[in-house]
Amino acid sequence: MRGTVLYGRGDVRFEERPSPGIIEPTDAIVRTSVTCVCGSDLWPYRGANAITQPTPMGHEYCGIVEEVGSKVKNVKPGQFVIGSFATSDNTCPNCKFGYQSSCQHREWISTAQAPRLRVPLADGTLVGTPDVPADDLLPSLLTASDVLGTGWFAADAANVKPGTTALVVGDGAVGLLAVLSARLMGAERIIAMSRHESRQKLAREFGATDIVSERGDAGVERIKELTKGVGADSVLECVGTQESMMQAIQSTRPGGFVSYVGVPHGVNLDGAQLFFSHVHLHGGPAPVRRYLPHLINLVLDGKINPGKVFDLALPLDQVAEGYRAMDERRAIKALLRP
Amino acid sequence: MRGTVLYGRGDVRFEERPSPGIIEPTDAIVRTSVTCVCGSDLWPYRGANAITQPTPMGHEYCGIVEEVGSKVKNVKPGQFVIGSFATSDNTCPNCKFGYQSSCQHREWISTAQAPRLRVPLADGTLVGTPDVPADDLLPSLLTASDVLGTGWFAADAANVKPGTTALVVGDGAVGLLAVLSARLMGAERIIAMSRHESRQKLAREFGATDIVSERGDAGVERIKELTKGVGADSVLECVGTQESMMQAIQSTRPGGFVSYVGVPHGVNLDGAQLFFSHVHLHGGPAPVRRYLPHLINLVLDGKINPGKVFDLALPLDQVAEGYRAMDERRAIKALLRP
Repeated sequence: MRGTVLYGRGDVRFEERPSPGIIEPTDAIVRTSVTCVCGSDLWPYRGANAITQPTPMGHEYCGIVEEVGSKVKNVKPGQFVIGSFATSDNTCPNCKFGYQSSCQHREWISTAQAPRLRVPLADGTLVGTPDVPADDLLPSLLTASDVLGTGWFAADAANVKPGTTALVVGDGAVGLLAVLSARLMGAERIIAMSRHESRQKLAREFGATDIVSERGDAGVERIKELTKGVGADSVLECVGTQESMMQAIQSTRPGGFVSYVGVPHGVNLDGAQLFFSHVHLHGGPAPVRRYLPHLINLVLDGKINPGKVFDLALPLDQVAEGYRAMDERRAIKALLRP
Repeated sequence: MRGTVLYGRGDVRFEERPSPGIIEPTDAIVRTSVTCVCGSDLWPYRGANAITQPTPMGHEYCGIVEEVGSKVKNVKPGQFVIGSFATSDNTCPNCKFGYQSSCQHREWISTAQAPRLRVPLADGTLVGTPDVPADDLLPSLLTASDVLGTGWFAADAANVKPGTTALVVGDGAVGLLAVLSARLMGAERIIAMSRHESRQKLAREFGATDIVSERGDAGVERIKELTKGVGADSVLECVGTQESMMQAIQSTRPGGFVSYVGVPHGVNLDGAQLFFSHVHLHGGPAPVRRYLPHLINLVLDGKINPGKVFDLALPLDQVAEGYRAMDERRAIKALLRP
C-alpha cells in the first residue's frame, strides 16, 4: 500500500509502504474510511521539530476493522471503529482516573494517513459503533478521534459550566471545536479570538457569542473590557505558543481556569507571574478515549456537526496539498479519502 | 511605638516608628496580641529580594481593635480580631469568587511585627471572635492569619478529598499545617517530605502517615515506590523553589493536582514538560479571608492546635533573634509577644 511520509520541512510524500499486520495479540488492523491532516502535523512540516529520518504521518482515523489479534475481545472484523491518537489499555490506574492519554502502556498512533493502520491495545483504544454509519457522518465521527476530543477536553479542563464566560484562544479546528464544546457544556458567553473571516463565521455557527480580533496586550485588554475588568472564568488555550499561553493566562480572572491542549512549543512560564495570576492550569494530550463514547453518540444522534471544520476534502494521494493548504491557512482542516 | 524594620540582609532592627492612625474611613487600628516571623520574611532577610530602603516587616497578626474609621461596621473597638496578610473589601467580583487575596482593592499588610498596626478595608479583612479568647488560644488563632490559612489553601487547591493520597513538599510551618489541613480534609495517606527530626515529629502529630527524607530525583523515586508507580493524587508544594516545584510536579499522578502556595523564587516551568505531566496546577497567595471563619471555629472548638508550629516564643523587642533562629532552622516559627 501507499502511505504518507514526511521527509523534511515542507516535503510530504505519498509513497509505497509496508502494509501493516498484527504484531501483538492485542492489535487490530483498521482500514481507514477517512483520515485527515492535524494542526499538530504542521509543527514538523514547518520545521519546528527536526525530522531526522523519513517519518510516517497521521494520527486521526476511523474505519472498518479488518483483522484482530488473538486477545482482542471488544471489536471484531467488519465493525466500524473510531480510536484515539494515543493508545490505551483502559485498565491501568492512569486510565481508570480518566487519563488514557497517559496510559502506562501508551503508544502514539503515527501512521494513520494511509489506507490501513495498526492500532495497538485495540480493546482499550477503539470504540465501535452499533452499525456502519452513513458516509455523510464520517467527517464528524473522524473529528472525535482528535480535534473534537481535544476541544472537548479544553472545555472540560477549563471547568466550563452553565452560565460561565469562556474564552477560546486559537481558531484552528481544535479552537473551533472548543467553542462547540463550551456551548454544549452550557457556557453563557463564548468569546472566540480570530481574525479570519471564515473561521469567525464557523465559530459563531458553533456557538461563539463574541469575536475578538485583537491579539497580545490589546487582546487581553479587549477581554477585560468585555468582562467588566474581571477576566474570563474559563480560558481554552488551543495554540501552544508563548504568546497564546500568556494571552490566555492574562485574560483569566483570579481563581479562573486555563486549559491548554496543544503541545507547547517554546513555552516557558514564570512561576511568580503564574502565582499572582491566581489561575488554575490544566492540560496535556487530551484523554480522547474518556470522551469517545459520548462524542460518538452526540454525532450519531445528530446533535452536533463538528465535521464542518473540514473545508477541504482530497483523495488521500493528494495529502501533500492538504498540508500545503493548511500551512497557508487556505484550509481550516483537510479531509483525506483513501 | 517601636516596630520591626529590615535594613538589609540579616539586619533586623526594632526601633522607633510612627504610631499608626486612621487614614481611610475603612481602616481599623489593631493592638497586636501576638505576631510572628513568617518563612516568607526570610526571603528578603536572606537577600533574595533587594532591600532598597528600611522596610517595616510583619503580616501575621491578631489582637484587639483600638479604633475604627467612620465607615467600619463589622468590627468595633474592644473586639478581638484576626485578619489576613492581604486586605480585601470582600465585595468585589474576585472576593465573591473566594479569591480575596486578589481583591481589586488589595493591599499587603507589612507592619504587623509591632504593637499596633493599621488594617485597611477592615470590614472585609478582619474576622472577630465572639469573646476575647483565652491566652493559650492566641498562638493557634494567630496561625489562621497566614500559615494555617495558607496550608489549608494548599490542601484545598490540591483537591485533597477523603481517601486520597496527599504529598506535602516542605516542612516549614506552612508545610506542617498543610499536613494538618490534608488530614482534616480526609486524606487517607499523607506523605511529608522532611529531613529534620523535630519537624518530622510534628508532621506525624498533625497526621502524616509517611515521612520521606530523600530529595530531588531520589525523592520522586521514593514517592513513586510508595504509590505503586503511579504518583500522588494531591501534591502540596510549600517551598517555592525550582527544585521543590519540579519535585512536586514529578511526584503527581497524571490527572493529579499540584498546589503551590509560597511565592516562587526563580521558578520557571517548561510548557511541554508540564503538558506531558498531565497535572492540574493551582496556587497563589492564599485567600485566607475565605477560610478564616471556619479555621477560627476549629481553633475555638478545640479541634485543632496549629499553634504547635511555634517552637520559640520571644518578647517582640527580641524579634531579630526570631529571624536568626528561623534562618538557622533552630526554630520552625517564632512567636512574638508585644
